[in-house]
Amino acid sequence: MKPEIRILGIDDSPFDKFSQKRILVIGTVFRGGTVLDGVMSTTVAVDGTDATKKLIEMINKSKFKPQLRCVILDGIALGGFNVIDIHALHKKTKIPVMVVIRKYPDLLKIKTILTKLKKEKAVTLIEKAGAIHKAGNIYIQIKGMTLKAAEETLKITCTRSYLPEPIRAAHIIAAGVVKGESKGRA
Amino acid sequence: MKPEIRILGIDDSPFDKFSQKRILVIGTVFRGGTVLDGVMSTTVAVDGTDATKKLIEMINKSKFKPQLRCVILDGIALGGFNVIDIHALHKKTKIPVMVVIRKYPDLLKIKTILTKLKKEKAVTLIEKAGAIHKAGNIYIQIKGMTLKAAEETLKITCTRSYLPEPIRAAHIIAAGVVKGESKGRA
Repeated sequence: MKPEIRILGIDDSPFDKFSQKRILVIGTVFRGGTVLDGVMSTTVAVDGTDATKKLIEMINKSKFKPQLRCVILDGIALGGFNVIDIHALHKKTKIPVMVVIRKYPDLLKIKTILTKLKKEKAVTLIEKAGAIHKAGNIYIQIKGMTLKAAEETLKITCTRSYLPEPIRAAHIIAAGVVKGESKGRA
Repeated sequence: MKPEIRILGIDDSPFDKFSQKRILVIGTVFRGGTVLDGVMSTTVAVDGTDATKKLIEMINKSKFKPQLRCVILDGIALGGFNVIDIHALHKKTKIPVMVVIRKYPDLLKIKTILTKLKKEKAVTLIEKAGAIHKAGNIYIQIKGMTLKAAEETLKITCTRSYLPEPIRAAHIIAAGVVKGESKGRA
């Protein structure tokens, strides 16, 4: 794998679930683990169901798309419970997808909450996303790429912390724009 | 000068001068020329006079402020003709200021336009900003720092192009958030 591969990292912005209907989502295009080549953005509905569609649109209309070798998501949902269908995201963009999870999730608890909220579709998408693999200090789910390729991608992109630089930067940018200043993290 | 000094790079977003009243301004906190440590943001009035005040507020309330060794501005104005008073910016923040100019400006033309628009205050601020120095392929104006310190700062921060990385990134982020996708540049 080339050290200068282009990777898209996606994260959402902090939001107030009581007052906000839509939230900003930031995508950063990185060359390897160091150079910010571009930024894209979209919005998704808080606790809605449009995250998959909005990400597919954002990626497919991007001029960076032909160069992208992987999409890294910071968690499988945006804007609360707006769960991303990583199979559909891969199928409609033809780009390998990696979900990064910081802490091993309590799936039973998440499913119980979602079922109570009558969000059965979200439960289905989480189950469909497949096996959760440990990779260094984090966990990942993958679609359209091998575990070996995912590990190589992490090796190239985790230059500043245990998180891939594209999602670390997406997180900082989304927070800085929406809150006036990022807290930074990791 | 330490290679890991913290620098704040500031740029505004693209805007439509006929329909927009305020525009987004992005500040990126970089460690040296490579690591994005944080992002801050504010807004300024298109062709207004609040740029200096808004930047001073943004910087003085930032938790990154104690670490900042230089503020780099991408041009002396934000949102059209909202000219920044770099003396006041330095005085109120105590941080050295550098204005980066890509092409040597046609000052006479700019002053003629501003005078026609009855923006004499903007003309005064541009004149007050002082000598324009050539530094590599760009031009700079400085306040609160020596030309030598400015050149060292450029050497540390111009890692990916002829522009300091903090303003290159601020430009990409501001465009990506406002337009949905950055064009990127040099």
